[in-house]
Amino acid sequence: MRILGGIEAGGTKFVCAVGTGPDGVRSEIRFPTTTPEETIGRAIAFFEDQARQVDLAAIGIASFGPVDPNPASPTFGYVTTTPKPGWANADLAGAIGRALGLPVGFDTDVNGAALGEYRWGAARGLDTFLYFTIGTGIGGGGMVGGKLMHGLLHPEMGHMRLPHDWQADPFKGACPFHGDCFEGLAAGPAMNARWGQPAETLPADHPAWKLEAHYIALAMSNFIVTISPQRIILGGGVMSGPHMFPALRSEVLELLNGYVQSPAILKHIDEYIVAPGLGNRSGVLGAFALAEAVL
Amino acid sequence: MRILGGIEAGGTKFVCAVGTGPDGVRSEIRFPTTTPEETIGRAIAFFEDQARQVDLAAIGIASFGPVDPNPASPTFGYVTTTPKPGWANADLAGAIGRALGLPVGFDTDVNGAALGEYRWGAARGLDTFLYFTIGTGIGGGGMVGGKLMHGLLHPEMGHMRLPHDWQADPFKGACPFHGDCFEGLAAGPAMNARWGQPAETLPADHPAWKLEAHYIALAMSNFIVTISPQRIILGGGVMSGPHMFPALRSEVLELLNGYVQSPAILKHIDEYIVAPGLGNRSGVLGAFALAEAVL
Repeated sequence: MRILGGIEAGGTKFVCAVGTGPDGVRSEIRFPTTTPEETIGRAIAFFEDQARQVDLAAIGIASFGPVDPNPASPTFGYVTTTPKPGWANADLAGAIGRALGLPVGFDTDVNGAALGEYRWGAARGLDTFLYFTIGTGIGGGGMVGGKLMHGLLHPEMGHMRLPHDWQADPFKGACPFHGDCFEGLAAGPAMNARWGQPAETLPADHPAWKLEAHYIALAMSNFIVTISPQRIILGGGVMSGPHMFPALRSEVLELLNGYVQSPAILKHIDEYIVAPGLGNRSGVLGAFALAEAVL
Repeated sequence: MRILGGIEAGGTKFVCAVGTGPDGVRSEIRFPTTTPEETIGRAIAFFEDQARQVDLAAIGIASFGPVDPNPASPTFGYVTTTPKPGWANADLAGAIGRALGLPVGFDTDVNGAALGEYRWGAARGLDTFLYFTIGTGIGGGGMVGGKLMHGLLHPEMGHMRLPHDWQADPFKGACPFHGDCFEGLAAGPAMNARWGQPAETLPADHPAWKLEAHYIALAMSNFIVTISPQRIILGGGVMSGPHMFPALRSEVLELLNGYVQSPAILKHIDEYIVAPGLGNRSGVLGAFALAEAVL
């Protein structure tokens, strides 16, 4: 069995691992995301050390973004226009691949996690599904017709505009680009700014959770009518809030109002909108799957 | 060159044609959509007559819906849950194929039109793009990663929920399922109901057009962040309203606010959001392309 390297490259921390899949992780480290030089250097040092012990076949990187995931582009594997200091136009995949002399699979963090869920988790056997992370930010990726979603660049699903009832929720939104887009209304920082305390400190009966489920349900019903996914997988810290899945599933059904006539939605919504099969490991295991895909 | 049959099967009228492409239409008829028996019978009679003169290779059908476009399904080629009297669960593709003894390609009207634009029109050379018709209803389809969009069933993009400023536009929406979804706010019947007169009778300086461009721009910016299309093609009667393309292009740029950093959008929006290359012929020519695809 070929040994894979995976990097879950987040804006806050990097997770690097070596192994073969969910049950075959041989070694793993995590460290904060600082400058590109230091952070990429630590990742390279980890894999160089591992390569002395095992025969590494390829590296996969599931990266924060925006990124350039187009293998035909001269800036393939770059983090592109991020506001994160030092990381704009950083050649992440190239630096790793050259240092280690290995092929590199590279995609967005959410496409990587989607591929992990496809390979080993809640999306096995599907060809059209979506994966979201709802936490510090909101990102969405997935597969359509058996391929990871790319297109012009890659999806930025957190930036969808949603109906916003200003009387019920006068919060103006926290997105620096769009104000009250999905991420601006519903990511962790928006919850913190709206309620004056971090989401994880809000009690289970706080109205924040119902409002949060409302925005997520609005977004999901929009993604359902746009993509017609066979399943939606929702990860990220906010999704561990109280009753989030039951609340948003029932509101999705209300919003669609029977229009999408599929038993998968009408009868089996509990298996249609689900938590990641890999728990909080979709990202790093997805990076393994990205590595596997270039072999 | 193989001779193709195409049916643009609309809820109001059917267009049937025989030919090879945009410059090779040999014969064409159109007739109103009445009962399935009568309407399908007229289509069969047309093609039977044509088949006495030319060697028909296949039939393509771009159909109003919802439909079942999954070739592996027992109800492939059916119009499924439409409220149109008599047409719910009508076996459109099967009836045509059995009567003529020919292979049948079948998809939604908008996926058919998208395929026509891909083959001969404004989407040549692209692999991820969207096609919309904005008229009596609003429908969207297209390709992602080189394949027509299907998934669980097929997209129903007209039913996306959009921000709705009730003070600026107190109209409650005309969609029987969702009230003020995209179609409920912006299709022809919504314009008629809001302003008390048909869209085509509204003067060029009527505020209806600015509001219409606003809703279309909101929807398109949402589809851009969701799918990351390489181009968006907008057809249908409402798009022939005054200044629609310039107005909505500039509002899409405002809404995205520089977030999607691609020259295709930032510098070349006039070539990014475009009218159909085949004019109002995308549907029937798309039906040819659907026929070609099953050969």
